[in-house]
Amino acid sequence: MKKTIHTREVSAHAGKTVTLQGFVHALRVQSKIIFLILRDVTGTIQVVIPESSHLFEHAKNLSLESVVRVAGLAKEEKNAPGGVEIHPDTLEVLSSSAPELPIPVVTLKGGDETESPTRFDFRWIDLRKPEKIKIFKIWTEFEKGFRKFWYENDFIQIYTPSFMSTPSESGADVFEVDYFDRKAYLAQSPQFYKQMAIASGFERVFMVGPVFRAEPSFTTRHLTEFTGWDFEVAYIDSHHDLMDLEERMIISGFQAVSHTFPEIALPIPTQPFPRIPMVEAKKILRRLRVISPEEHDLSPEEERALSVHVTKEMKHEFVFVTDYHKSMSAFYHMRHPDDPDRARRADLLFRGVEVTTLAQREHRPEILEKQAKEKGLKLEPLADYLNFFRYGCPPHGGAGIGPGRFIMSMLNLGNIREATFLPRDVKRLNP
Amino acid sequence: MKKTIHTREVSAHAGKTVTLQGFVHALRVQSKIIFLILRDVTGTIQVVIPESSHLFEHAKNLSLESVVRVAGLAKEEKNAPGGVEIHPDTLEVLSSSAPELPIPVVTLKGGDETESPTRFDFRWIDLRKPEKIKIFKIWTEFEKGFRKFWYENDFIQIYTPSFMSTPSESGADVFEVDYFDRKAYLAQSPQFYKQMAIASGFERVFMVGPVFRAEPSFTTRHLTEFTGWDFEVAYIDSHHDLMDLEERMIISGFQAVSHTFPEIALPIPTQPFPRIPMVEAKKILRRLRVISPEEHDLSPEEERALSVHVTKEMKHEFVFVTDYHKSMSAFYHMRHPDDPDRARRADLLFRGVEVTTLAQREHRPEILEKQAKEKGLKLEPLADYLNFFRYGCPPHGGAGIGPGRFIMSMLNLGNIREATFLPRDVKRLNP
Repeated sequence: MKKTIHTREVSAHAGKTVTLQGFVHALRVQSKIIFLILRDVTGTIQVVIPESSHLFEHAKNLSLESVVRVAGLAKEEKNAPGGVEIHPDTLEVLSSSAPELPIPVVTLKGGDETESPTRFDFRWIDLRKPEKIKIFKIWTEFEKGFRKFWYENDFIQIYTPSFMSTPSESGADVFEVDYFDRKAYLAQSPQFYKQMAIASGFERVFMVGPVFRAEPSFTTRHLTEFTGWDFEVAYIDSHHDLMDLEERMIISGFQAVSHTFPEIALPIPTQPFPRIPMVEAKKILRRLRVISPEEHDLSPEEERALSVHVTKEMKHEFVFVTDYHKSMSAFYHMRHPDDPDRARRADLLFRGVEVTTLAQREHRPEILEKQAKEKGLKLEPLADYLNFFRYGCPPHGGAGIGPGRFIMSMLNLGNIREATFLPRDVKRLNP
Repeated sequence: MKKTIHTREVSAHAGKTVTLQGFVHALRVQSKIIFLILRDVTGTIQVVIPESSHLFEHAKNLSLESVVRVAGLAKEEKNAPGGVEIHPDTLEVLSSSAPELPIPVVTLKGGDETESPTRFDFRWIDLRKPEKIKIFKIWTEFEKGFRKFWYENDFIQIYTPSFMSTPSESGADVFEVDYFDRKAYLAQSPQFYKQMAIASGFERVFMVGPVFRAEPSFTTRHLTEFTGWDFEVAYIDSHHDLMDLEERMIISGFQAVSHTFPEIALPIPTQPFPRIPMVEAKKILRRLRVISPEEHDLSPEEERALSVHVTKEMKHEFVFVTDYHKSMSAFYHMRHPDDPDRARRADLLFRGVEVTTLAQREHRPEILEKQAKEKGLKLEPLADYLNFFRYGCPPHGGAGIGPGRFIMSMLNLGNIREATFLPRDVKRLNP
C-alpha cells in the first residue's frame, strides 16, 4: 500500500510532502485558482491548484465524489480551513464518479436534506456524509465497551443458529424458509439457545447477531432484521442481579464512547439505575395525567412521560420498569414466589425508548410446562426447549439489548433506520 | 447473587468456609462415606460427606448432573485430587436431573464416546464435557485477538443484512424466504455490503455474522449456516496487501489464544506466510505425485499434501495459494493487468484446511459489467451492486474468514460440527 496520511494528520506534516486519498467533496473552479476539498474517513482538507499548475486543466474537469490520490506540499496557510492546505504535484483519479449524483453528499446551507426513502435507496452515497459515518464509528466503540465488560467478567461468546425447526413461542411474526425438503424458521431471538448454554454449564455467555421479526410494523423503532446483543447468566437470585450486571455493561459502553468522542458530551450514568415496579410506574403516570388503554403495559407516550419524570425527579436518563403482570410475561418468565401474578421481568428505558428487556427464566420443567399450558401453548413444538431443563439446569436469566435503539437515542436520530447500516423493513429489501 | 467461588479457586481458600455451585459430575456412595465430584465452568472439586454428616442420606439420593450449591470447609488433603476437598455443612439442590441421562457426560475409561448424531441431538449435555466447553472459550479468545487488531487499526464494525431482494451471483445454493408479499434471499456472504461500505468511504470495515449456504453438502467442513468474519479495506495495491493484513490478524488471534491457553502449545506463525501461485502449487503437487482432475483448483487431498509439503520445506503451518485462473474467479475479482487470465485472489490453507479466501475487487464498473457478462450473468439482478461503483469507489479488497474451520484445525477436531455450538446442516435443524 502507498504511504499515505489522513486529512486529520496533515497539520502535523506542515512543510512536508504528503500523499492523501479520498473523495472530491467540493470543487470551486475560478479563473485563476481551483479549490478542491478532499474528504476521507477522518475529515476534509483543502487542496489548492493555481492556474500555473500543470494540474489545472485536469482538476477543472473532475466530477464531485470521484476518488483521487493527491501528493504535494502541506503548507501552513492561515486563511485555509484548519490552517493548512495542500499544494499538489500530482493528482491521480482512482475512480471517476458519474457527473450527476442521484442524491447530494453536501447539502447546501439552508437546503433540505433529501427525503428519507430516496436517501435509503442510495444509502452508500447517503453514508458518505461525515456525521453519518460517525454513527458507525460510535457503534463500534459502544460494542467495544460492552465487550470489555464481557471479556473481563469471564463471559463466553457463542454463536447461535438463525435456523430453527419450529417457530419459538407462537408461530406469528416468524419468517419461514424453504429448507431443502422442509421448512425452517428464522430465530426471533437467540434466547432459547443462550439458555441451552446455561444448561450446558457455560455460566455466563454473550451473543451478537441478527434477530428476525416478521412484524408488519411501520414505526420509527421497528425493523424486520436488526442486530441484537444478548447475555445470559447462571446462579442469579432474581432479575435484580441482571439489572446490576447490565448497568455495568452500559456504563462500560458509555465510557468507551465518551472517551473516543468527547465532543458528543455523553453523560455516564451512575449506579444503581432507578428501578420502578410497573404498579408504581402506573401510579406516577396517573398523577402526571398520562393515560393508556393498557393496564399492564406502557404505551410509547407513557414511556416518554415516565423517562421525563425520572430525569427530572431522580436526575437519571435510565429507568428500569420492573415486575410485569403475568399477562405481559412469557411462559418462560419466572414469577415472584410471593406474588404469583408478577414476573421477574424488567424493561429498560433510555430517554423514553425501550432499549433492553430482561428476565429471570423459569428453570423448573414442571412449572415451565404449567405456565406454557396456561398461556395456551402446545407443548410439542416446545419439546426441544423443555428438554434443556430435565437434566439439571442452574437458575439463570438474561437480557436482549438493542444497540440500534441505544445509538438512535444516544445521538437523537429520531428513527432506528438512521442508526442502521442497511435497514430492512416491510417495504425495504434494497440495496 | 450469593457470594460463591469457582472450583479453580478452592485451593487459595484452604482452611476457610466457601460456597460452590455446579453439576454433580460423579457420585461414589460407599457405606461410610460419599465422594461427590462437583463440576463448574472452571473445573472439578471433590466434596466429601462422611456417614456422620446430616447430609449423608440427602447426598446418597442425588442424581448425576443435578445442580447443587455446597457450602463448607475447604480442607487440604493430600490424597484428594488437587490437594484440597470440601467438607460441606449445607447441600442444596438447585435443579434436579432426571435419573437416566440420554447420553453420559463422563465417558468411562476405555469406553467409546457416544456416536456423533446422538450427541448432537443432546448437544446441551454433550457440551458439558470440560474439553467441549473449552472449544468455545478458545473461540472467544481467538475473536478477541482479531478484534484487538481491528480496533487498533481503525476498522469500523458494520452489521450487514441477511435479507437480500435478489440472490447474489447465481441463484443456486441460496435460501428463499417468504417476505410479506414477496420473496427474499439469505445472504451467502456479506461481501457486497462490505464493498458498499468502501464506496461510502468507510476505508476499513469488519463484520461478524452468520452466512447461509443452501449447498447439499455432507462433508466434515460444510454447514448450511456458519459464522463468518469478514473484512474489507480501501486503497490497496493488490491482494498482497490483504495477505499482509490478514497475517497480522491471525497472529493477533493466535497470541490471544496462546496467552490464555498455554497448555495447547499453539505455535505463533511468523510473517510473511508462504505465498505460492496456483501454477507453482500444481507443479509441486505433480512432483509429489498428488493428482487432481481439476487443472485450476485444489482437491482436499491436494490441499493436505501442499500443507504437509510447506510445513516440511518452509517450516510454516500456513500457505496462501494465490493468483487463481479466471475460470476459478468470480466476476468481481480483479484480474492481473499483466496476465488477464489470472485473478488477484488467494486462499489460505492452515494445516491442510482452507480457512479464508480473499481478493482484490474490481471497482471499475465497465470492467465489472464486462466480466459479469463473460461469466454469463444477467446484469439486472446485479443492478444494485453495480451502482455502488458508479459514483466514485476506492480500489479495495477483503477476505472472508471461517473461524469454525480455524478452531477445528487448531484443536484437531476432525469435523466442523465439533467447533460449532449448534450445527445446522441438510439433515439437522434441532435442537
